[in-house]
Amino acid sequence: MHAFGDRLATAVSRCKTPTLVGLDPRFDNLPAPLKLGRDNRNPGDVAAAFEIFCKGVIDVVASRVAVVKPQAAFFEQVGVPGMAALAATIGYAREKGLLVILDGKRNDIGSTAAAYADAYLGAESAWRADALTVSPYLGGDSVTPFAQVANARGAGIFVLVKTSNPGGGLFQDLADSEGPLYRHVASHVEALNADRVSGSRFGSVGAVVGATYPEQLAELRGVMPHAWFLVPGYGAQGGSAADVAGAFDSDGLGAVVNNSRGIIFAHAKDDRFGDDRWQDAVDAATLDMIASLRDSTPAGRL
Amino acid sequence: MHAFGDRLATAVSRCKTPTLVGLDPRFDNLPAPLKLGRDNRNPGDVAAAFEIFCKGVIDVVASRVAVVKPQAAFFEQVGVPGMAALAATIGYAREKGLLVILDGKRNDIGSTAAAYADAYLGAESAWRADALTVSPYLGGDSVTPFAQVANARGAGIFVLVKTSNPGGGLFQDLADSEGPLYRHVASHVEALNADRVSGSRFGSVGAVVGATYPEQLAELRGVMPHAWFLVPGYGAQGGSAADVAGAFDSDGLGAVVNNSRGIIFAHAKDDRFGDDRWQDAVDAATLDMIASLRDSTPAGRL
Repeated sequence: MHAFGDRLATAVSRCKTPTLVGLDPRFDNLPAPLKLGRDNRNPGDVAAAFEIFCKGVIDVVASRVAVVKPQAAFFEQVGVPGMAALAATIGYAREKGLLVILDGKRNDIGSTAAAYADAYLGAESAWRADALTVSPYLGGDSVTPFAQVANARGAGIFVLVKTSNPGGGLFQDLADSEGPLYRHVASHVEALNADRVSGSRFGSVGAVVGATYPEQLAELRGVMPHAWFLVPGYGAQGGSAADVAGAFDSDGLGAVVNNSRGIIFAHAKDDRFGDDRWQDAVDAATLDMIASLRDSTPAGRL
Repeated sequence: MHAFGDRLATAVSRCKTPTLVGLDPRFDNLPAPLKLGRDNRNPGDVAAAFEIFCKGVIDVVASRVAVVKPQAAFFEQVGVPGMAALAATIGYAREKGLLVILDGKRNDIGSTAAAYADAYLGAESAWRADALTVSPYLGGDSVTPFAQVANARGAGIFVLVKTSNPGGGLFQDLADSEGPLYRHVASHVEALNADRVSGSRFGSVGAVVGATYPEQLAELRGVMPHAWFLVPGYGAQGGSAADVAGAFDSDGLGAVVNNSRGIIFAHAKDDRFGDDRWQDAVDAATLDMIASLRDSTPAGRL
């Protein structure tokens, strides 16, 4: 079993792009053919539409990119049928050779953190994700159980460091004499990667660092040389390809850049296709993002 | 529809105790009769045992306490069948007149935070919890959507402020010139409660403050006069009834004190009952905790 940092490097190098497709299904935004005959107040209907939609996106992007990121919140919103759709989506993505980062921003203390890690990480877990996003507020002893399970199973975690939302700085930028909170969290992430598999360039503990803070991206690349970055905030949130350039090493590895709405709901913004040809719109948007990252970041060297 | 802060005050006053029973099912710790004939590697078997166990705990405690707190992690660990057991547990608790705080420590940004809030809060949501625990790392604009949904639905949230784990201070105690991070978060919680329903003493935004930090409990009671406290860390984690005294107002309102393992797995520690009479052990442990809090805290004045 290979370490997660290596698996991600291999997959990104093979696809020659750090593009990460976020699976954030919302019923109102689905292409019209998927909503037809389905009631948005019926959880079974909504969950069925989500599953068909996510599988349809996966069918398009599996030959283009290395990783997808289902957002747990939208599936949880649909209750138990939604969770079944999430499980089916993860399983289908893995079947198609994609790595799956589940965006759940989970955490808790001690043995409860271990339960979350056991739930989500690795092919033998209930949900079978390759990686999970994790919140650091509860401290080092809340992140360690995730890192341990991840290391043991060839899985990964991405710890929230500097998030892409406008209000992210309220607590993350709070600074003591040694620097802001986000840098303390970053140093902790780097320390956890000291345990990485011998010879591996990246460890199993990654970091979430938003595209909307280009300067901090470059700063944090220096603080966490052994961490993969998951970069949200590209596209709909305002981050450009040039903004994320600092997230990469000089050879174009080290970061995956998420785009959710800009890819999966591209049919609503691209007149060439419309609702009926929504998968063509997904493909075109994916290719656009791949080209932008290739042209304006070190990912062009992949 | 009544505001959550008022609903909790009414329920705690009626039961005359702030005891909160945590529903943290773990298959290995279940009473032997519930494990009999069930395979711990079969999710359907485990989920069925969890549901029977949690309903059995609820049958005992519904006449004693006002609130239960299912821990999402343990249900998520069992995959989709586990989530169905969680839904059934929440529904059964509400049917028996209990308030349900789902311990999920969720959060995300903007519209995704709103999706989590919509998923979990209120009788019309998919999971129908009365309240949800929420992590603050992502900042003020990540907590606001939860507070808005909670206010609109008579539901509540409990924001992590100072957690009970030994390593909780690594980031929470990081201090700038105005004080530690946890106090900044506490001030934010109090500010959100400025929106509380006219005439209500407590708002819909509560705070998680651990029993293992008695001095901070009292300090934070002063910082957040309009917030309900959810106090973990009592019992198995080392917090005593005297340790949590500072969480209460002088009339015994303002805090609910969680006990999970000490109550639900009491059969393993109390020779009077054993596995076959596990519900009697749950009842005895609940009554013990009620008596301790009555004797050593302002909750005796309820």
